[in-house]
Amino acid sequence: MDAIKVFAPGTVANVACGFDVIGLAMDAPGDEMILRRTDKPGITISAIHGANLPTDPLQNVAGVAVQALLQKYANPDIGIDIEIFKNIHPGSGIGSSAASSAGAVVGVNHLLGQPFTPKQLVRFAMEGERLASGAAHADNVAPAVMGGFTLVRSYKPLDITSLHTPADLWVSVIHPQIEVKTSDAREILKQKVLMTDAIRQWGNVGALVAGLYQENYDLISRALEDVIVEPVRAILIPAFYALKTKCKDAGALGGGISGSGPSVFMLSKGEENARKVAAMMDTIYAPLGVDYKIYVSKINTQGVKVI
Amino acid sequence: MDAIKVFAPGTVANVACGFDVIGLAMDAPGDEMILRRTDKPGITISAIHGANLPTDPLQNVAGVAVQALLQKYANPDIGIDIEIFKNIHPGSGIGSSAASSAGAVVGVNHLLGQPFTPKQLVRFAMEGERLASGAAHADNVAPAVMGGFTLVRSYKPLDITSLHTPADLWVSVIHPQIEVKTSDAREILKQKVLMTDAIRQWGNVGALVAGLYQENYDLISRALEDVIVEPVRAILIPAFYALKTKCKDAGALGGGISGSGPSVFMLSKGEENARKVAAMMDTIYAPLGVDYKIYVSKINTQGVKVI
Repeated sequence: MDAIKVFAPGTVANVACGFDVIGLAMDAPGDEMILRRTDKPGITISAIHGANLPTDPLQNVAGVAVQALLQKYANPDIGIDIEIFKNIHPGSGIGSSAASSAGAVVGVNHLLGQPFTPKQLVRFAMEGERLASGAAHADNVAPAVMGGFTLVRSYKPLDITSLHTPADLWVSVIHPQIEVKTSDAREILKQKVLMTDAIRQWGNVGALVAGLYQENYDLISRALEDVIVEPVRAILIPAFYALKTKCKDAGALGGGISGSGPSVFMLSKGEENARKVAAMMDTIYAPLGVDYKIYVSKINTQGVKVI
Repeated sequence: MDAIKVFAPGTVANVACGFDVIGLAMDAPGDEMILRRTDKPGITISAIHGANLPTDPLQNVAGVAVQALLQKYANPDIGIDIEIFKNIHPGSGIGSSAASSAGAVVGVNHLLGQPFTPKQLVRFAMEGERLASGAAHADNVAPAVMGGFTLVRSYKPLDITSLHTPADLWVSVIHPQIEVKTSDAREILKQKVLMTDAIRQWGNVGALVAGLYQENYDLISRALEDVIVEPVRAILIPAFYALKTKCKDAGALGGGISGSGPSVFMLSKGEENARKVAAMMDTIYAPLGVDYKIYVSKINTQGVKVI
């Protein structure tokens, strides 16, 4: 195979109570990428459409992720070219860098006859995240590579597991086009938390995972509560509590801040509810004078896919 | 029906990372109880065999739990007698009071033709726990009533869910016959915890629940880690770390302090491993000069049962 085109999904990390551990993949928005074998050894990025990002492969998350892959490949001196069609806005909080990293390594893995496992691909894609944010976190690249809901139990050692995704679970996302720096969002977090809050949070995490396996939408809804991070970060996002309250009134199971913001996600049972929730997001944001985009998607259970 | 005999299981609360939220039920040890309809209105406790506990129904957890049930029953003036055969040592940390409370209300519910749901029975049994410890906690009575693994997501509102129990999961328990007061065990806990530890804990809780549903014993093993409570409480239990390390060497998946101690539990895949783990517990405790009892049991998925 000489060339392959892939779809690389947007992802929601920090799924409510599952701060730093639970993420999910979406069908929209997503990037497209073309990976090509080239005659000249090394990695090139021939074009990036739709965003102003570096084409130097060592300064681009996709390039760095593919480099990490090739370093573990039997023949590291092959040539790979990457062409990227960005639909996920960098800085949106829905896994823009993760989509590029994950799409690149899954695509190259296909080009090479699939020598690597999904978990190895997650490791390679994490190197892209290290370039993007200074930390090789997995909470976006794991769902981007593996699809569905994923749980990162630990980093030392790296321990990632796929969770069950209920058949009729949808997500609505609003991306207010304001800037929230991940580093700022992290700095305002407290270093210590109340034991009582921590217990409530891990009760919710356990219930969310159980709800996913039971396909129990009511339990999922009750478990979508974050008593630790959301109360601190909500201030970063215009009309956050209006979004949350009114989207639940409109039929959402619940939701929260996607990643470190500014996007906000809401889960719903069924497409009809998810579209009502999206309409409510629009109603709330229309008068605010902030540019925004809204997406509706089923949970993507496949991750990066060849198209 | 005029009389019924039930088996009321011992339970492990605070299952490792699942402090205050995850509990499980055992087949051994367990109490037996006989519940009888009597002609005279009110609750009596005619005998308690095997332990020195109050027979005044208002001072006994079983009496208080049945009283809570009768207050919600259409005909609260019926007469109930309770006879208890205690095999679970009070103060052992394996749900002695919960067994009495749960056994009593499940038994009476059978006598009355099952007017109440398991979740209602948990609520009644929680009143027994309130008498025993001052707090109406559910983490022992929920598994005692419902069987298997249970998760208490929240108390306000009360939200309890049954988790899946893998088919071949066994538990070994050692009860060192020393006194650890629940109040003391609670006082030494910190009021605040590090965010990093809290995240690790809820990653483990999510992984433990996922491991139970996946019947993934390796994942369960990795998730049986408590970075918050165990490091503080381990000092209360003789040879705790020797038990933990050597039982894992002997084949245990992992374990921890049962409830607030002094009992220690270890989960294993299969009876053979569980018996090896129990033998290791014996080897470690034999030279210590502390009386102890050891139990081996499959996870009890039924809860209180009629015998």
